Amino acid sequence: MKVSADHNPLRDPRDLRLPRIAGPSGLVIFGVTGDLARKKLMPAVYDLANRGLLPPGFALTGFARRDWEDQDFAEVVHDAVKAHSRTPFRESTWRQLSEGIRFVQGTFDDPAAFERLSETVQELDRDRGTRGNHAFYLSVPPASFPLVCRQLAASGLSKSTGDAWRRVIIEKPFGHDLDSSRELNDVVSEVFDPNSVFRIDHYLGKETVQNILALRFANQLYEPIWNAHYVDHVQITMAEDIGIGGRAGYYDGIGAARDVIQNHLLQLLALTAMEEPVSFSAEALVAEKLKVLSAVRLPRDLSRHTSRGQYEGGWQGGEEVLGYLEEQGIDPESTTETFAAIRLDIDTRRWAGVPFYLRAGKRLGRRVTEIAVVFKRAPHLPFETTSELGENAIVIRVQPDEGVTIKFGSKVPGTAMEVRDVTMDFGYGHAFTEASPEAYERLILDVLLGDPPLFPRHEEVERSWEILDPIEQHWAARGKPEPYRAGTWGPKSADEMLARDGRSWRRP
Amino acid sequence: MKVSADHNPLRDPRDLRLPRIAGPSGLVIFGVTGDLARKKLMPAVYDLANRGLLPPGFALTGFARRDWEDQDFAEVVHDAVKAHSRTPFRESTWRQLSEGIRFVQGTFDDPAAFERLSETVQELDRDRGTRGNHAFYLSVPPASFPLVCRQLAASGLSKSTGDAWRRVIIEKPFGHDLDSSRELNDVVSEVFDPNSVFRIDHYLGKETVQNILALRFANQLYEPIWNAHYVDHVQITMAEDIGIGGRAGYYDGIGAARDVIQNHLLQLLALTAMEEPVSFSAEALVAEKLKVLSAVRLPRDLSRHTSRGQYEGGWQGGEEVLGYLEEQGIDPESTTETFAAIRLDIDTRRWAGVPFYLRAGKRLGRRVTEIAVVFKRAPHLPFETTSELGENAIVIRVQPDEGVTIKFGSKVPGTAMEVRDVTMDFGYGHAFTEASPEAYERLILDVLLGDPPLFPRHEEVERSWEILDPIEQHWAARGKPEPYRAGTWGPKSADEMLARDGRSWRRP
Repeated sequence: MKVSADHNPLRDPRDLRLPRIAGPSGLVIFGVTGDLARKKLMPAVYDLANRGLLPPGFALTGFARRDWEDQDFAEVVHDAVKAHSRTPFRESTWRQLSEGIRFVQGTFDDPAAFERLSETVQELDRDRGTRGNHAFYLSVPPASFPLVCRQLAASGLSKSTGDAWRRVIIEKPFGHDLDSSRELNDVVSEVFDPNSVFRIDHYLGKETVQNILALRFANQLYEPIWNAHYVDHVQITMAEDIGIGGRAGYYDGIGAARDVIQNHLLQLLALTAMEEPVSFSAEALVAEKLKVLSAVRLPRDLSRHTSRGQYEGGWQGGEEVLGYLEEQGIDPESTTETFAAIRLDIDTRRWAGVPFYLRAGKRLGRRVTEIAVVFKRAPHLPFETTSELGENAIVIRVQPDEGVTIKFGSKVPGTAMEVRDVTMDFGYGHAFTEASPEAYERLILDVLLGDPPLFPRHEEVERSWEILDPIEQHWAARGKPEPYRAGTWGPKSADEMLARDGRSWRRP
Repeated sequence: MKVSADHNPLRDPRDLRLPRIAGPSGLVIFGVTGDLARKKLMPAVYDLANRGLLPPGFALTGFARRDWEDQDFAEVVHDAVKAHSRTPFRESTWRQLSEGIRFVQGTFDDPAAFERLSETVQELDRDRGTRGNHAFYLSVPPASFPLVCRQLAASGLSKSTGDAWRRVIIEKPFGHDLDSSRELNDVVSEVFDPNSVFRIDHYLGKETVQNILALRFANQLYEPIWNAHYVDHVQITMAEDIGIGGRAGYYDGIGAARDVIQNHLLQLLALTAMEEPVSFSAEALVAEKLKVLSAVRLPRDLSRHTSRGQYEGGWQGGEEVLGYLEEQGIDPESTTETFAAIRLDIDTRRWAGVPFYLRAGKRLGRRVTEIAVVFKRAPHLPFETTSELGENAIVIRVQPDEGVTIKFGSKVPGTAMEVRDVTMDFGYGHAFTEASPEAYERLILDVLLGDPPLFPRHEEVERSWEILDPIEQHWAARGKPEPYRAGTWGPKSADEMLARDGRSWRRP
């Protein structure tokens, strides 16, 4: 079905029949020695090049303290690509890409280093035809954001001029509360135009997350029942089976709610609950996400409708694992939560009375991210049945095993009219021969195209902190989180919190 | 979920927690030398016995012209069970069942034979404790119905007395038009009470057909969109890949519409389209089926909204096959249709404007019976998409590969917002460890229990003929049906009939 684009400014004018290929441009990565750069960013750049979605003269510049030449950095990229890229290694792709690889040695506080970066960028414009179009990926600790931004400004790197664009990409955390997120935004927006700031929430780059919108709005089946008339409640779960691993320095003092609920889970809530956008343009999407986030209401009694926990040692996957407080680098008195669950309500005509339960945690029973839309029971059953009939549910499986599951009641074979829950599945892996690109491929390409629908705006970040701050304050006043055993599904209070509402968590 | 039974007479008072086991009773089969008796009825009786659902003293009596003793008939049953029963052969089950096997030799026009049958029945009541409860299965040509019924009456076999019951089971065809169905009913109801007449439509005994009601009314997901607001049209297909086989004598002059549309397909339409019954009692189900059948409206121009065809020779399954007119026993001038398609409308608030397309045929592309509820397109797509997006559909697969398929649009992995049709499946075979009983097991047990919800009443049969008769008359006035090649999906006029409405048949 072809829906023609008109000239409504809220509509996305791109014609999807043309392949989306980045124009002349380059990417500068700050923090090239980090895990993210090596495991995700460099492979994503290569995969994009391999798929023919980057311009021939594309440039990849690394900036770090190491005493490297271009050649040394190119070897690092080469190894990262070989180890982590999604598409096969092709010598021709690599040769073309590697010709555009540069390295600038320096520290963030050294103006001379940024002068050298500026010269490198100009050289690339001359020799590789990048035409002044450069994106800066700040894969650095948040504390360094202001400094790098100011240096980019001082060296003239941040200014778009004429047709040439400059864009900046920042990774979470976007602050740790409302105030700090505003401060961060002030710094960034002093240097870059708001439309040139791309905040990465890699969950929004996932196919299954984008598919929420396709499911809801490209079909006739779901939207008629996607409301308080038929939906009993929604459960959004992001469960990890791992502990904090090497992230102690980042994680302690932050915790599960700030780490993933503030960004990933509230974005999933927004996409699940929002009204149909006028188009898929960034403006139209952000408008709807903001509307629904603005309608989110916190429970009055936070001690009854939230839960937080901290994992204790236990057994997981046949292995004995440490408790959070015994992990290397963690303060043994830490009150950081590794499990958080929250009930939120949405004060709109569509969702009034339908609780959204969000939970996230580490060392839980199984790694799974899913959105479960749980329906009310049929108002009446015209036949008797002795079996336990559950509620209908549509489950969007974000990861792993990406797809959709529908749970409903079906007659049990036999001579009586007995009904039992069954499921039907749609699996992304089975349905499509097309491989799913990595979220970072999608997002880096979107930055180079200047196409922002999948990036949260500062207003969304602010609104998310407004939702979370009172909960964080409530918890901070209460000391230690409730312990739970590694490999279980979180603390008792999480179950009690739903039991009070007459509901229970899914065991996915 | 347990829904308590109250004393509303429309409610089914059975408590499903008790196993449904037949009480003391016997079954008399007329026509024990036929295919149906050997392949379906005898195995079904054995399977019921094997599942412990028949009383210990159960009696199975055969009536036929053959010069057999009880022992000979028992051997016939034994061989039929060994060859066709669903459950494993167990010597103990067989021994108990075979002790109740009797044979009465005679012809339908011989009153003395029915006297002998009466004596046999009395002997069984004495020796096996069948307590006067007997069902008579008329697995005989329709022309013999009146004679057998009158003989049963004359010999006193048809009369229920006191607590003892007598029931009669008749197989389609229930006449070949409205008048003949009324005549048949007059004969049968002169002899048996209407509540003692069980008309077999074996489709109603199928698990997937009963599951239509479970799907619709035990769930919250489907009923809200099961109406003209969301449904574009419904397609009910019964396609066979075989030709007429050995059924020339029966089939010629009858044709596809009388053979399966009048009974199976109109029953499927009724179950798909009816309102929720007050309960699953026979009265409540029949009331709803009759309501919706009464609301069925024929198209004004039958030549534009019906189609009929007759298969020609061709290739099927790698084999060359004969055309209908070349089949053994078929009049080479026959105008009998082997393919029939009809558009029907239902004049109710729920279905106004939603056509129901019924089609049935032999020598089609594939053996499949299904109900496809095809939904309207989403009223608006907020994103551009170049892919061909079909309509959402819920398909109830009656046979083979019993289950449910949902077709909907999903995002194609990749960087653009492209949407493509995908399917999700629920398969009966995968979902349940319980094996599905054969339709005849279910139906024979229901007769012995006196439980008639799955048997069409005479009123439904009449109403179905009222729908079909004008179409048959229209066709009869038009001579030869349109030829179609064996192995294709019917004549061109069938495709044109839907194309005129802007639709097309599914290729299941």
